[in-house]
Amino acid sequence: MSGPLSGFKIVDLSSVISGPVATVLLADQGADVIKVESPQGDIVRRMGLGATSMSPGFVTANRGKRSICIDLKEDSGVELIKKLVEDADVFIQNFRPGVIERMGLGYDVLKAINPKLIFVSISGFGETGPYAHKRVYDPVIQALTGLPDIQADSDRARPKMMRTIIPDKVTALTTAQAITAALLERERGDGEGQHVKVAMVDATIAFLWPEGLAGLTMVGNEANVRRGQLAQDLIFETKDGYITCGAVSDSEWEGMCLALDRTEWMDDERFNTPFGRVKNAKARLEGMGDVLKSKTSAVWLERLEAHDVPCAPVLSRPEILQNEQIKNNELIFEYEHPNLGQIRQPRPGAKFSRSDIRSKPIAPALGEHTAEVLGSLGLSDEDIASLVGAGVVHRPTNDS
Amino acid sequence: MSGPLSGFKIVDLSSVISGPVATVLLADQGADVIKVESPQGDIVRRMGLGATSMSPGFVTANRGKRSICIDLKEDSGVELIKKLVEDADVFIQNFRPGVIERMGLGYDVLKAINPKLIFVSISGFGETGPYAHKRVYDPVIQALTGLPDIQADSDRARPKMMRTIIPDKVTALTTAQAITAALLERERGDGEGQHVKVAMVDATIAFLWPEGLAGLTMVGNEANVRRGQLAQDLIFETKDGYITCGAVSDSEWEGMCLALDRTEWMDDERFNTPFGRVKNAKARLEGMGDVLKSKTSAVWLERLEAHDVPCAPVLSRPEILQNEQIKNNELIFEYEHPNLGQIRQPRPGAKFSRSDIRSKPIAPALGEHTAEVLGSLGLSDEDIASLVGAGVVHRPTNDS
Repeated sequence: MSGPLSGFKIVDLSSVISGPVATVLLADQGADVIKVESPQGDIVRRMGLGATSMSPGFVTANRGKRSICIDLKEDSGVELIKKLVEDADVFIQNFRPGVIERMGLGYDVLKAINPKLIFVSISGFGETGPYAHKRVYDPVIQALTGLPDIQADSDRARPKMMRTIIPDKVTALTTAQAITAALLERERGDGEGQHVKVAMVDATIAFLWPEGLAGLTMVGNEANVRRGQLAQDLIFETKDGYITCGAVSDSEWEGMCLALDRTEWMDDERFNTPFGRVKNAKARLEGMGDVLKSKTSAVWLERLEAHDVPCAPVLSRPEILQNEQIKNNELIFEYEHPNLGQIRQPRPGAKFSRSDIRSKPIAPALGEHTAEVLGSLGLSDEDIASLVGAGVVHRPTNDS
Repeated sequence: MSGPLSGFKIVDLSSVISGPVATVLLADQGADVIKVESPQGDIVRRMGLGATSMSPGFVTANRGKRSICIDLKEDSGVELIKKLVEDADVFIQNFRPGVIERMGLGYDVLKAINPKLIFVSISGFGETGPYAHKRVYDPVIQALTGLPDIQADSDRARPKMMRTIIPDKVTALTTAQAITAALLERERGDGEGQHVKVAMVDATIAFLWPEGLAGLTMVGNEANVRRGQLAQDLIFETKDGYITCGAVSDSEWEGMCLALDRTEWMDDERFNTPFGRVKNAKARLEGMGDVLKSKTSAVWLERLEAHDVPCAPVLSRPEILQNEQIKNNELIFEYEHPNLGQIRQPRPGAKFSRSDIRSKPIAPALGEHTAEVLGSLGLSDEDIASLVGAGVVHRPTNDS
């Protein structure tokens, strides 16, 4: 295959989400990602599972990678990483700050082995400061970056978490772009590598700023960011479900009045200007809500559509699979995973007209590629058997 | 400066958020982004404002770009774009599907002018299918991608929007990485460009899948994704505010019991295994909530910290600016904007040890660089004056 990242070798010591979701995008785009796991394996492998071998989250975050299982508490395990890094393009880790240096695999060490290496460190809070060594979970980063404040229903309501791990995944996308940019610069420059650092708290605040945190932009004239936060969002109950619809421009509002058969609202002074519609949002949304309750989603969506008002059904997660537009996009594909049976995965969001994306990528069993990867480093079968015997590296057992 | 993207020229016809937030990251990393605006300007320029010249959202989404104001309803305006594209690396637009072709600036046309061009199209739903020509707002994409279903408080609660524009900004990050990857591939290959397409609905589903949509992975054995969704999230009210804290491992739970002075929970069969803590989450979270109400946030955070339990204050947006860790990270910096006075902006999430990031980037006034950019295309002052006179291009007036 010839993906945009093909030909690049990434040695990936990261685990859980923020690192693996960054490198899986690069694997989808063709990179050879060698996932280095401890004998316990990435904790996401079994998350939420009983006896089965691999969680759905692990499948998506690690598809198309190769797994090598090394005990990095052993000196000879650490030496294997140094050997792996000799001809690698990228090295990535998301241990707590200081850990990788204590393992003997800090940037200075690896740079001396391979000056062209892009060394990537993901942390929760950064490498210094009062929180630097704290434990990190996604809700902790949410709490520090204003997400629960944004999600509160009104200016007096309690803050609320977003129920998906936004900071982890935003960090992953930010890191994937930064790695790609560093490779691009290296390609055009003198071939030297560098150290790329991404803190989850930084990536999340940068992500939120253009809108969620924009009110903090004017120094000394900060907006009262919660004032005006609407108690009600744009979800409306119909006779048989939920839809969203909204009107920003005058022409959209006119379409809304026609679709809802409330033409009297077209002359209503509360609603007939953009300013009025914002000022009287509560009355407007409640009025719309009362009307929308009276018929089914399908009836309303057809009417709103006919009047060119932005609208959509509010889909439950299983309904996503049945939606005609999503089917049309050939986004979600089904294929066989050797250990799991038939699985469903989405391709990456961006489509390239010339570059290939890895098709039907498989998430590896723990240590599935231990022998193959070590062999490519020049180790003989006897060397590998001896490392396995000493417990330095691991290969899959029959029952895993 | 020598950012990872410096030396690349991007002709940017995109507006609002999904395109501008993609290209602003590349501008921060050194690209020369030429923002092409209609005489009305990007609608985000004045969003939420009265008479002032530039919204905070516009500042963040367009800092470091140059603005050229061209009326693309005029044939000679369209010709100027073709001239701009001759030596460009990237062309990006987020009109509804079909519009760019009708303007005479489709991929086939621009590719003939410049075969090395990376042509980027962002759409809401994709270029074909039943929704392709519908109007797009962020809530519409949220509704179609399961975000409100994920945000619902329980399996019987109504769906809820996330109160920040996740699909728009996830699309932006996805697009920024895809552009960087396409440039990298071009650099290493035969120098040919290509067409990169990103649909918001695709990018959002791909973003959510590793966790929020993971339950749809196993074909024929889909998880009942809402079952087990907790009514309560990890935000707890204290005597004087809100904190988050959580315990996943046994050792973290032990720390939690010690910090909360509830050592009896260490032997409580409901809570003393990871399985039990998940099964009895409601009782556990309510119990924790009762205890945490009794003292201030500062007291609890110190105790939790002492026992190595993941925790943080739940910050309101203004409090983010005062947080010691965020200050330490030198993430948010203040500087003077010529038209707005002192502003505050975050640097991008990723830090590079060797590459520069543009410092103190300024968002341009509408048409601020019209003359400069046209001059660089070889147009004389008389040519430019004549285009201005004919209303084909615009320069800032004194009052803008």
